[in-house]
Amino acid sequence: MTTQDPIRLFGLGLGPGNPDYMTVRARKVLESADRLVHFCKRGRRGNARTIADAIVGQNPEREIALAYPVTTEIPADHPDYAAALNPFYEEAAVRLLAEVETGRTLAVLCEGDPFFYGSFMHLWWRLKDRVPIEVVPAVTAMSGAWTRAGAPITWGDDVLTVVPGTLPEAELTRRLSGTDAAVVMKLGSHLPKVRAVLKSTGLFERAIYVERATMAEEKIVPLPDLPEDFDAPYFSLIIVPGQGRRV
Amino acid sequence: MTTQDPIRLFGLGLGPGNPDYMTVRARKVLESADRLVHFCKRGRRGNARTIADAIVGQNPEREIALAYPVTTEIPADHPDYAAALNPFYEEAAVRLLAEVETGRTLAVLCEGDPFFYGSFMHLWWRLKDRVPIEVVPAVTAMSGAWTRAGAPITWGDDVLTVVPGTLPEAELTRRLSGTDAAVVMKLGSHLPKVRAVLKSTGLFERAIYVERATMAEEKIVPLPDLPEDFDAPYFSLIIVPGQGRRV
Ligand SMILES: C[S@@+](CC[C@H](N)C(=O)[O-])C[C@H]1O[C@@H](n2cnc3c(N)ncnc32)[C@H](O)[C@@H]1O
Ligand SMILES: C[S@@+](CC[C@H](N)C(=O)[O-])C[C@H]1O[C@@H](n2cnc3c(N)ncnc32)[C@H](O)[C@@H]1O
Repeated sequence: MTTQDPIRLFGLGLGPGNPDYMTVRARKVLESADRLVHFCKRGRRGNARTIADAIVGQNPEREIALAYPVTTEIPADHPDYAAALNPFYEEAAVRLLAEVETGRTLAVLCEGDPFFYGSFMHLWWRLKDRVPIEVVPAVTAMSGAWTRAGAPITWGDDVLTVVPGTLPEAELTRRLSGTDAAVVMKLGSHLPKVRAVLKSTGLFERAIYVERATMAEEKIVPLPDLPEDFDAPYFSLIIVPGQGRRV
Repeated sequence: MTTQDPIRLFGLGLGPGNPDYMTVRARKVLESADRLVHFCKRGRRGNARTIADAIVGQNPEREIALAYPVTTEIPADHPDYAAALNPFYEEAAVRLLAEVETGRTLAVLCEGDPFFYGSFMHLWWRLKDRVPIEVVPAVTAMSGAWTRAGAPITWGDDVLTVVPGTLPEAELTRRLSGTDAAVVMKLGSHLPKVRAVLKSTGLFERAIYVERATMAEEKIVPLPDLPEDFDAPYFSLIIVPGQGRRV
């Protein structure tokens, strides 16, 4: 690969969901790429692809869907998880490389920002020394969430801790203790555990549940008002705004 | 204020610096607002206003510059700081409200995302119950930084801790101990202290210094390679990428 090679592979951050919150660069790449690549559950469209719907219609020729062999059926720390995901990413990398080598441009669609807990990172890591890649940063889901909740996240000297809800309860408690502001990503089925942790760390009262931030089906509820048996979908997170210096 | 009132006041996130990384919504508001409001040091143009230069030229009639009475001359935790900043924000709020009441639309320009350590938050807080405000989320400086550094920030179950470099050394050490990934905002003159903290918390070796991310004068250097006596400007931060699960 030489520096003169045109860039044919993009890690394309699409933002939290509202198409007006895509960057100018993202819109341009989305409109011009020869192939739109997206991750999805078997037999379903991926969330990132759904975000792109407002801008680009369906053209089966233009789509490359990468269906995960497993998603939440196996816990991510189980050896079977890596055993299933590793060949999946390897094969996907080979497939994308072959496409790029035919001269096509490919945009791998990402929810939010590609380098913030993104699946794309696993492809990037395998391909970065083999082909030029442009990563397009984006508005994160958490920015979309605190904006729509009307809840500035960090004031003055506030410290922000971002945790994945997938961590074990003791670990979550340890990491969130004493923080000023927090975001819990990858909520879904972890909500009951996260709720308990936020209670024990004193963050529960000001926590806000945000589902599908900036999308048509957006839902924003103070966590204390959310029913105990509420079923949180994958596309949800919790924010705990800081209370730092206000002058 | 009724829900029918059109929105005339915008907290406009412009992103990290590159105009292509503005959102579609930000571009639209930037082009159409009657007045562009920006914060600045006395006698200087503000950083957010400089980001907007690529899109909107100078038209003195259209500009409202809000010059801070103090910036780094007084430590932010000193009583004199609040004593100077409080009337400044109060007067600015009154002034913007008067403009809005004449029927003009005003965009308060913000570096990065408005609700993430933004000065705009102090105006928003004073005006939110008096006039409808639209906040436009944006790509944060840290997203711009990790993208340009080619350094995905969080993998798998990584925890990310964001701290302002303004915190005292002991506090920074406590907050960064045991985190997987970190971002240090508001670096500037705090660099020597932050360097010491990163060394004592074992984060130094993989820390990356990023100045003016995504801008023409961008500078990206592994922290261990930065000269000991290096003078960091205000527009700089440090990222420490996580090393979590890669499948
Ligand atoms: C694999 S992570 C991707 C994060 C993304 N790269 C970002 O920058 O925000 C997926 C998690 O992001 C969160 N998420 C993504 N989009 C969201 C939205 N519009 N509203 C709420 N949460 C969202 C959910 O917590 C979800 O489980
Ligand atoms: C008051 S905070 C504003 C943060 C902004 N609202 C955001 O979303 O990133 C100012 C700090 O942001 C960081 N910053 C803003 N723009 C930057 C850039 N382009 N490159 C590096 N750091 C930047 C610096 O650490 C600076 O001291």
